[in-house]
Amino acid sequence: MKSLSDTICAVSTPPGQGGIAVIRVSGEDAVAVCRKIFKSAKTSPSSQKEEKNEARIVFGRIFSGDKILDEVLVSTFRAPHSYTGEDVIEISCHGSLYIQQEILKLLLVAGCRSAEAGEFTQRAFLNGKIDLSQAEAVGDLIASSSAAAHRIAMQQMRGGISAQLSNLRNQLLHFTSLVELELDFAEEDVEFADRKQLKDLAMAVETVIRRLADSFETGAAIKNGIPVAIVGETNAGKSTLLNRLLKEDRAIVSDIHGTTRDAIEDTVIVNGLMFRFIDTAGIRETRDAIEQLGVERTFRKIEQASIVLWVIDLSGDIQETVRFSEVIAARSEGKKLILILNKADKLNFNEYSSKIACYDLLGKDRIIMSAKSDDDLSALESKLAEAAGIPQIGENDVIVANMRHYEALTLALSAIRRVIQGLEQSISGDFLSQDIRECLYHLGQITGQQIGTEEVLGNIFSSFCVGK
Amino acid sequence: MKSLSDTICAVSTPPGQGGIAVIRVSGEDAVAVCRKIFKSAKTSPSSQKEEKNEARIVFGRIFSGDKILDEVLVSTFRAPHSYTGEDVIEISCHGSLYIQQEILKLLLVAGCRSAEAGEFTQRAFLNGKIDLSQAEAVGDLIASSSAAAHRIAMQQMRGGISAQLSNLRNQLLHFTSLVELELDFAEEDVEFADRKQLKDLAMAVETVIRRLADSFETGAAIKNGIPVAIVGETNAGKSTLLNRLLKEDRAIVSDIHGTTRDAIEDTVIVNGLMFRFIDTAGIRETRDAIEQLGVERTFRKIEQASIVLWVIDLSGDIQETVRFSEVIAARSEGKKLILILNKADKLNFNEYSSKIACYDLLGKDRIIMSAKSDDDLSALESKLAEAAGIPQIGENDVIVANMRHYEALTLALSAIRRVIQGLEQSISGDFLSQDIRECLYHLGQITGQQIGTEEVLGNIFSSFCVGK
Repeated sequence: MKSLSDTICAVSTPPGQGGIAVIRVSGEDAVAVCRKIFKSAKTSPSSQKEEKNEARIVFGRIFSGDKILDEVLVSTFRAPHSYTGEDVIEISCHGSLYIQQEILKLLLVAGCRSAEAGEFTQRAFLNGKIDLSQAEAVGDLIASSSAAAHRIAMQQMRGGISAQLSNLRNQLLHFTSLVELELDFAEEDVEFADRKQLKDLAMAVETVIRRLADSFETGAAIKNGIPVAIVGETNAGKSTLLNRLLKEDRAIVSDIHGTTRDAIEDTVIVNGLMFRFIDTAGIRETRDAIEQLGVERTFRKIEQASIVLWVIDLSGDIQETVRFSEVIAARSEGKKLILILNKADKLNFNEYSSKIACYDLLGKDRIIMSAKSDDDLSALESKLAEAAGIPQIGENDVIVANMRHYEALTLALSAIRRVIQGLEQSISGDFLSQDIRECLYHLGQITGQQIGTEEVLGNIFSSFCVGK
Repeated sequence: MKSLSDTICAVSTPPGQGGIAVIRVSGEDAVAVCRKIFKSAKTSPSSQKEEKNEARIVFGRIFSGDKILDEVLVSTFRAPHSYTGEDVIEISCHGSLYIQQEILKLLLVAGCRSAEAGEFTQRAFLNGKIDLSQAEAVGDLIASSSAAAHRIAMQQMRGGISAQLSNLRNQLLHFTSLVELELDFAEEDVEFADRKQLKDLAMAVETVIRRLADSFETGAAIKNGIPVAIVGETNAGKSTLLNRLLKEDRAIVSDIHGTTRDAIEDTVIVNGLMFRFIDTAGIRETRDAIEQLGVERTFRKIEQASIVLWVIDLSGDIQETVRFSEVIAARSEGKKLILILNKADKLNFNEYSSKIACYDLLGKDRIIMSAKSDDDLSALESKLAEAAGIPQIGENDVIVANMRHYEALTLALSAIRRVIQGLEQSISGDFLSQDIRECLYHLGQITGQQIGTEEVLGNIFSSFCVGK
């Protein structure tokens, strides 16, 4: 149905009402279409020589028939010097919903069709402006809400992973062509490709691919948020603590007016990392079988987390808490467990000392605080950041955060390992070549050299927002 | 606190995440500030002669220290050829919240301050790019969600009311200076200003001001929505009808992704006009004193409406309905009453004929329908549009939709009427002059010639969104 020769249009700015909105038009007819609805405010055309590769920006009016719909700025980017590589027009109009909608209608009547989600970026890929992993990074960049996720996406958009893969591919291609040359001279039993050199190369390639694949754990945690479970008895102060964390974060974000994070899971940015909080019901000591089930359900939720915050009411009964400690410790195995000794302000000095000494037995990572008071949360925030265990990411480190890339890397890894094994067992050139080709194929999937079907591309870009 | 010499910045596109966002910077240091954080992708400066009044658009990178924060387009508009009349930079960045926030932070560090609501437009006014009524129209334009409201705001933004007022003012100024000249020659009893001519002028001015003031009823209805009360018995189908109306409207609006209209009152755009629905509880026949109070409350709500939709269940007891008819008719005096004879699909032919004949007695404006079925609503929509009684607005008609303008016009009207009265009573030049001056003063308030205090301006612009 959808054709690349169509001229497409969409609102590219966030949905809703604002000071200005930008409507993007891309395709062969972009300039002609816009001429139908736009008149420049200048009476005579610019005397300036129009350089084809210079972007131009002109003030004027959008007309609906003979009625003035809006006063706008129109930027023109001539192919191939544009985001999509096609002629692109950006109309910067007043940001009323009515105007946005009416300009879109005029563009549709003038011969555009509505762009699908991510279609501008998809065209940038298909026109060779960027490779597929860079195109995907555009989506990640827009969605990234923490400094770390932003850094990974930016690195990928600027071709970080592409450069590494392209290097590997070139070396492998060179070797596989030598191996395949041997096959043409099969009768003569020559060996163009030095097996020792090939093995060194394959091992080096394996190392790079493994390192990239291994970075996915970090990348996914950064991209999706580090899962944290807050557990504790019903009135231990879990919600108060979560609300405090959320509010500290929101104070920063609200500089740029409201986000819609409430609709999704509760996430908090701490020290440039996103933490995702898993909702758990309060636990409480009970001998009732049915209530035990509820507790069990809470404990199961811990399994999704990589960090467990155990909130304990310091003013509460220490016996009760100790009774749970074994279960929580068992459930938190392999996870970081942080004890929040809450409501510290409710204790006098003597109580405080004896209780703290007792809780020392439960775990080493603990923070004594009062979530309700105005205590600053920096101690907790440092602990969270530390527990996240995300390694320092250098400016040039390439981190894989995309599940599709990870899958392709895993398949490429198997293939290159078969190559190494084959070399060790001195298998014949045609089997070797087949495994190298498979490795190349999977690496090529990432940057899009080998991607053909519309369906696959559609899947990749459908998660984008419209207008990008 | 806030100074006009500050360089200000804000996100101008709608709040939230999208393909792209635009950050606007305005002020003396706009170019210098942006140079601190932006590097053009071009290695050498453009060889093209830079024309000072040409807007320029350049691709490049935003740097946070030595880290690349984003790849952006930067448009430069040199004073006075910009929206605010100052140097303006527009940074078109990727629309992630993180990036928007970080760029704002960088701009603040580089020496900007955050713009207040409407401050860009306020500067455009203070720098003489537009007058005050035009500046206010920018806010109305962005908020307008119907074709009619948009047309009024656009007319005002393009200087419609300003042109009419400026014309009146010039004529009045001419006359008042002649009258005041007479005062200088008071001893000599001369008359420079022809009293007959002045009276003709005053009458003409009175007519124009009255026409403008009278247009406010229409303007306010268009801007705020025409209030409609839906009344009827509890199960008559009021909600079904409202939901149908809302859905038809939403189907159009949703072309441009969700609006947040749910949070506010229910409004529907019909034939380019906005209707605002007033929620009323269902009424029902009762002899209980307390329930009667509830009915009374519903009837009082009718008073806010200019259109009353009375929804009647055709399959219900006709006696009950008739009992209310007198009250509803009384309460709807001076309003348009439309009867919706609903659930027509539940009747057989005989019932139908006899009932319809009976309901004919209740009112002339009636629509027979079934809100639940897929009946199209065009008959009802035409009736609503007709009942709204909004006159056809020509392309050049000036309609006042702003309460501040209306108040100024009302005061100007009293003043000019005193002038006419004074002329009829041949009062002395100094009293005449005082009334003309007062009329001029109030007219000047509208376009801002006489507005001095920051407080008044602050009030006007505080209803704007930030970034405009």
